[in-house]
Amino acid sequence: MTSAPGSAAAGRARLADVAALAGVSVGTASKALNGGGRMRPETRQRVLQAVEELGFRPNQYAQSLHSGRSWTVGLMTTDGIGRFSTPVLLGAEDALGAGKISVLLCDTRGDSIREQHHLRNLMDRRVDGIIVTGRRTDARPPLPGVESVPVVYALSPSTDPADTSVVTDDRGGARLAVEHLVATGRTRIAHVTGPQHHAAARERAQYAAEPLANAELQLSTGRTHFGEWSEAWGRRAAEAVLRTAPDTDGFFCGNDQIARGVADTLRERGVGVPADVAVVGYDNWDTMALASRPPLTTIDMNLAEIGRIAALELLQAIEAEPRPGVHTVPCRLIVRESS
Amino acid sequence: MTSAPGSAAAGRARLADVAALAGVSVGTASKALNGGGRMRPETRQRVLQAVEELGFRPNQYAQSLHSGRSWTVGLMTTDGIGRFSTPVLLGAEDALGAGKISVLLCDTRGDSIREQHHLRNLMDRRVDGIIVTGRRTDARPPLPGVESVPVVYALSPSTDPADTSVVTDDRGGARLAVEHLVATGRTRIAHVTGPQHHAAARERAQYAAEPLANAELQLSTGRTHFGEWSEAWGRRAAEAVLRTAPDTDGFFCGNDQIARGVADTLRERGVGVPADVAVVGYDNWDTMALASRPPLTTIDMNLAEIGRIAALELLQAIEAEPRPGVHTVPCRLIVRESS
Repeated sequence: MTSAPGSAAAGRARLADVAALAGVSVGTASKALNGGGRMRPETRQRVLQAVEELGFRPNQYAQSLHSGRSWTVGLMTTDGIGRFSTPVLLGAEDALGAGKISVLLCDTRGDSIREQHHLRNLMDRRVDGIIVTGRRTDARPPLPGVESVPVVYALSPSTDPADTSVVTDDRGGARLAVEHLVATGRTRIAHVTGPQHHAAARERAQYAAEPLANAELQLSTGRTHFGEWSEAWGRRAAEAVLRTAPDTDGFFCGNDQIARGVADTLRERGVGVPADVAVVGYDNWDTMALASRPPLTTIDMNLAEIGRIAALELLQAIEAEPRPGVHTVPCRLIVRESS
Repeated sequence: MTSAPGSAAAGRARLADVAALAGVSVGTASKALNGGGRMRPETRQRVLQAVEELGFRPNQYAQSLHSGRSWTVGLMTTDGIGRFSTPVLLGAEDALGAGKISVLLCDTRGDSIREQHHLRNLMDRRVDGIIVTGRRTDARPPLPGVESVPVVYALSPSTDPADTSVVTDDRGGARLAVEHLVATGRTRIAHVTGPQHHAAARERAQYAAEPLANAELQLSTGRTHFGEWSEAWGRRAAEAVLRTAPDTDGFFCGNDQIARGVADTLRERGVGVPADVAVVGYDNWDTMALASRPPLTTIDMNLAEIGRIAALELLQAIEAEPRPGVHTVPCRLIVRESS
């Protein structure tokens, strides 16, 4: 409780040091600095002089005691930080960090013990709110024990419709991809995608059927080819499609890795892309889409925008009131040489 | 300064609410909770009763006022969060977050105004220390105005040798790659890498010469092929190498993208990998190394370990004293089918 020698010299004077030098209590020093409390002008003056003398910087922690806000937000990732959650995180950090809000990063790595530990830590630090993000678009159960602070779910929505979630528009993305293929004259379209137990694969397949039906078309092989999110699966699936429906003239792929595998197999079998067959990917993962031969037409989910909107919804919930429900962020079609 | 109605009910009671209910000053309530200060046992008891009644959780902010530590660390990335800085960040978060330290994420995006803004914010929040990381291995000038807190540089070292930096061992990595090629009987080795103005390209090329000289060998084309970190460059460079030194039997590539491009060109020209020519990459970027045909032998920089060691060096500097200088983290050779 006494002022540590040297701490002032090191530019890290504490409020207790200021109070001791001014000859007042820590509470009085705090009130003097926060503009509140009734006190004699001379007392406040003594505190301010001590602040000057010690080079004390009014401490946000002390201020937060009085404002009831910590000006911090927890950013919790539930299953590591990967290719999808990184842009979401950065979009959120961008929207929050530009102001006076700081972002506490918590990576729970899908471990519930770690999640509880981080959550307790965030609550102890009195975060003003929490953004939860994950690697997949599948819905997740709400974070337990956070009733007292606003929470916004980004990319991976909460299963509870009373929560606020910001998600990608898989319906719009699938529609953009298929309508682009149809608009460029393709009528025999195959769909190759990831595992059926992933919402992203299931929903894109389901929504791809709508614009096909609108154009009075059906999938060239009569079914969706579910598999893995890999190039190797794209190569294998392309072989299967060419075997069962050799007149296929367009591929809508569930991600860019699959699309790249499809494009490789087509090229190696002497099928021209896009002269004979068009290929459309999903994700606009630049390393993959640009390295593909030819570079891929693809769907961009605007992941940074999902993070940014999640941050704005969280600020709305903190400063006014939450807007519960699912907010979708539209996708963009990026046209390159593969279509 | 008065207790906000409803805040206690919402489980967000403030120290001021506790003080008001106990009939003491905020300073006295704070002392009672932190175990310091001389006060009558009844006073402390009244404060503790108010804490119970209001469901107040002792606030880390208030505690930090007295301990002089905020138990937060800033994690600052200087040029976005990419493929390289993500594992470094996660390694650091893992080492710090497992304890009671929270991580404040700041992405400066290479913008000096943003860097100043974040730095001011971190200092205002009284972080106990800062980890600075970047996307490249090139040295960077020290962060300005942080003399009062410990700083550790991860991946991108500080140009000031008095600072503490944790970096990858490019010399050891290049040695592992070349010695592996030599040990598997390759004697005509080519080196294809990224741009010469990147330290990672320059230093790996320089250090590759040492084990070659030890084996009384020279580069098959007589020079390093500097270019880009891309597959397209790998494909072009492989053509050039096959033209000027058709007896080349091994490629050491500066990253996995280049190695994949080299492997693609060799396969498409009917050259067997690894039967005729071995290919070794760098980074162990799984998406790239595993999707390559064949999968790539490569060098893993242990990026998460760089983050973890940086966190431990920062804790050492906070709790005892810094260990200035450059700490290198060894690489690992990952053998797959390309060699």
